[in-house]
Amino acid sequence: MTEKTALTPKTHTPPPAKFSHGVRKGNILQVAGQVGFLPAEDGEPPTPAGPTLREQTLQTLANVKSVLEEGGAGWDDVMMIRVYLTDTAHFAEMNDIYNAYFEEQNLTAPPAARTTVYVGLPAGLLIEIDALAVLD
Amino acid sequence: MTEKTALTPKTHTPPPAKFSHGVRKGNILQVAGQVGFLPAEDGEPPTPAGPTLREQTLQTLANVKSVLEEGGAGWDDVMMIRVYLTDTAHFAEMNDIYNAYFEEQNLTAPPAARTTVYVGLPAGLLIEIDALAVLD
Amino acid sequence: MTEKTALTPKTHTPPPAKFSHGVRKGNILQVAGQVGFLPAEDGEPPTPAGPTLREQTLQTLANVKSVLEEGGAGWDDVMMIRVYLTDTAHFAEMNDIYNAYFEEQNLTAPPAARTTVYVGLPAGLLIEIDALAVLD
Repeated sequence: MTEKTALTPKTHTPPPAKFSHGVRKGNILQVAGQVGFLPAEDGEPPTPAGPTLREQTLQTLANVKSVLEEGGAGWDDVMMIRVYLTDTAHFAEMNDIYNAYFEEQNLTAPPAARTTVYVGLPAGLLIEIDALAVLD
Repeated sequence: MTEKTALTPKTHTPPPAKFSHGVRKGNILQVAGQVGFLPAEDGEPPTPAGPTLREQTLQTLANVKSVLEEGGAGWDDVMMIRVYLTDTAHFAEMNDIYNAYFEEQNLTAPPAARTTVYVGLPAGLLIEIDALAVLD
Repeated sequence: MTEKTALTPKTHTPPPAKFSHGVRKGNILQVAGQVGFLPAEDGEPPTPAGPTLREQTLQTLANVKSVLEEGGAGWDDVMMIRVYLTDTAHFAEMNDIYNAYFEEQNLTAPPAARTTVYVGLPAGLLIEIDALAVLD
């Protein structure tokens, strides 16, 4: 698997531009910025899992995981997670959700590094996450 | 080519600090954040290609490509493109420009992953882009 | 060293969530977003090195370096440095501090690529930096 391959989970809507939800080349896998959209439904526009940080964070993490798995990877292979929030007041709650989520994942490798910064996102979106993985 | 080498296209002004426009080490190539500055002219300060999103996006993509090529890579090798915009209202137009640009590049590999977020940039700049490539 | 290992310098407080200050897998090393916290003291909350950009930038760079060294790397191995500032007015001063710092490091390889963007950070923090390194 030394060729660059696009990773497109069946749950995902087509990207709104010429980019891939994820790509893998050799042992490097990059997941594009994911947001809290529910699994795609034919003919429907992308729809957030809900208005709350909890709903969007969990759906975003599920979407990142789908791309990882499409490329034969999992959370244990992830080196870096970039979390984009829109409000510094969301940091503590996001961490609670993040910690509980990863405790349930039963990982065997140490957790990924992470950077969290506060940016603007399209209206209605509270969180965006991307990830870089290195496979064995 | 396992040594770390700096990539400095002739079109580029010297970086305003101790960083490289791009570096390559082994098969990994990282392009620094590029903006829409025109090719450097002796004795002139860096000048944006123009005030519009279109002018700056196309110049920024050209600048990223110059660094890739300086390192023996091209768009087909790019795994991740990070797009920094200053205004969520620019997303649709940037996508149109981005899509048209990449259609003209006649790539053979799938498009790179991408994350777009909205941040502050120096006055007059509407877009910044960096890229991570993995060569064959 | 093909397993993913967490990098936790003794100077660092435990991360506030399930992430690592840095991870290394094979020859790839990722440093998590570092801020200007002083070396950890038992029973004390994380404390910034000071209120100024200079104090925080130098401490942040020291913290990144600690993580690199914990993973057997150094600045010469760094491919990409991401600098997050909160105010575009800080760019020139940050560059002065950054340049002087790296001149003192006596590096032998060319400097890393870099992207600087302006985002929100938690109250009191003026700078955050993360880094990607590729070891020999």
